[in-house]
Amino acid sequence: MKTINSASSMVRELARLKKKGATVGFVPTMGFLHEGHLSLIRRARKDTDIVVVSIFVNPVQFGPREDYRRYPRDMRRDERMCLREKVDYIFYPGLKQMYPEGYSTYVEVQGLTRNLCGKFRPGHFRGVATVVTKLLNITRPDRVYVGQKDAQQAMVIKRLAADLDTGARVVIVPTVRERDGLAMSSRNVYLSSVERSLAPTIYRALQEARLLIKSGNRDSRRIISGIRRRIAGAADGIDYISIVDTEYLVDVKRIKGEVLVAVAVRFGKTRLIDNIIVRP
Amino acid sequence: MKTINSASSMVRELARLKKKGATVGFVPTMGFLHEGHLSLIRRARKDTDIVVVSIFVNPVQFGPREDYRRYPRDMRRDERMCLREKVDYIFYPGLKQMYPEGYSTYVEVQGLTRNLCGKFRPGHFRGVATVVTKLLNITRPDRVYVGQKDAQQAMVIKRLAADLDTGARVVIVPTVRERDGLAMSSRNVYLSSVERSLAPTIYRALQEARLLIKSGNRDSRRIISGIRRRIAGAADGIDYISIVDTEYLVDVKRIKGEVLVAVAVRFGKTRLIDNIIVRP
Repeated sequence: MKTINSASSMVRELARLKKKGATVGFVPTMGFLHEGHLSLIRRARKDTDIVVVSIFVNPVQFGPREDYRRYPRDMRRDERMCLREKVDYIFYPGLKQMYPEGYSTYVEVQGLTRNLCGKFRPGHFRGVATVVTKLLNITRPDRVYVGQKDAQQAMVIKRLAADLDTGARVVIVPTVRERDGLAMSSRNVYLSSVERSLAPTIYRALQEARLLIKSGNRDSRRIISGIRRRIAGAADGIDYISIVDTEYLVDVKRIKGEVLVAVAVRFGKTRLIDNIIVRP
Repeated sequence: MKTINSASSMVRELARLKKKGATVGFVPTMGFLHEGHLSLIRRARKDTDIVVVSIFVNPVQFGPREDYRRYPRDMRRDERMCLREKVDYIFYPGLKQMYPEGYSTYVEVQGLTRNLCGKFRPGHFRGVATVVTKLLNITRPDRVYVGQKDAQQAMVIKRLAADLDTGARVVIVPTVRERDGLAMSSRNVYLSSVERSLAPTIYRALQEARLLIKSGNRDSRRIISGIRRRIAGAADGIDYISIVDTEYLVDVKRIKGEVLVAVAVRFGKTRLIDNIIVRP
């Protein structure tokens, strides 16, 4: 395993391997890896010859009042975990490498970014789309692996990868959860022990919503109130509880086809998201 | 020479050649080729193994009241010209190939696009940046060739090619002019014979500005009035006459270093642009 800091070395290394016919699987991360990331890496390891993991806490996708500075980082531990998973390359660029002085190009995905987190984190998906476009150009992978936990992000990446003709196929991997149902997230370390004990309510509420839909309930408003009642007792705040279609992420009033039930809630200063896909 | 309509075939063909070590030179155009384009193609032909010319009138870079529909097209003639210049591939995608249903990703270059044409053609450079990002991802060239005549566009492409880590080096090729000084442009065919006879005033005015600067004049406002007086007698309207620095394209009041003297004027419904670079 090699850790590489410069884009040009990364390009050169991969070009050499691709010339020999190797396929590349790419896992973009912000580091502080957990089982969720590892499931992406394992999938890439199974599918492709060369596995590249990027570790870069991308400032452009954080709002001015968000947690960019305190976002958890532990490169040593990440390297050990990647080594264990037989990752071939960690791409670990510095800030100046990714956004040198005078940097001015941004990628925007319209439509998909209007609802859900896009509404509450203005500029967030622009930051995601920009850094992912850069990372895809640097690694030019055959496949890129992203988690279903960040459902909107996964769809934004899928959209831009196709729209910008990157040639990369986006593979969306199921959410990995703690035993009590809490979705794995690097941000879970922010939680106090009380918050941590309350956080699984999110997934329990989503599971109840699934049951309601499966048992014939079609009225999103009612299902959302059910989730809200459940979560309000545990969380300190709710950004959104939404039921949207899985193609455009537009609010659905009456559930007909497949829907995404997605929530963003706050425990103290910590914002957690989760979602499930339900077919009625 | 091969004309290719689909992005995936283009990618496949070039991947095959690159595997053998061939370098690729790319010339993006909107077709209706003239000597300006040919100078780009010739430069690419000299520098690289495989020359790819794209021909695509990109609707996204035209404003709603601009000339997208009537923009001149003549694919037969373009193909003959490319054949003569020993072009290897023409990439000639259809509208649906480039912007399929649901397309939603756009690339924006900030700063550089604020002044000059960016001010008068809102959304224009966003359209340019988007299509060029797509074309660079499809052709993944070693070098891309653009004309100095479209100075702001050239700088936008240079910026995005670097910012988005495309790996393409942008080569800016000098403006090719008619004998009387009029800069070559596909839009020159719009001009009536009277307009055509008046249009060389643009370049004459720019030349006079160069003389003024070279002879010690440093006050942009005065130089601009000189150009304006000269052009106002010939053109039907002036979008802008600007003296800007060559790095950020910001208006310069007192000329110290290298400047770009750039104009956009209208003859009837036809909008023409031209520019010169002057070092005092």
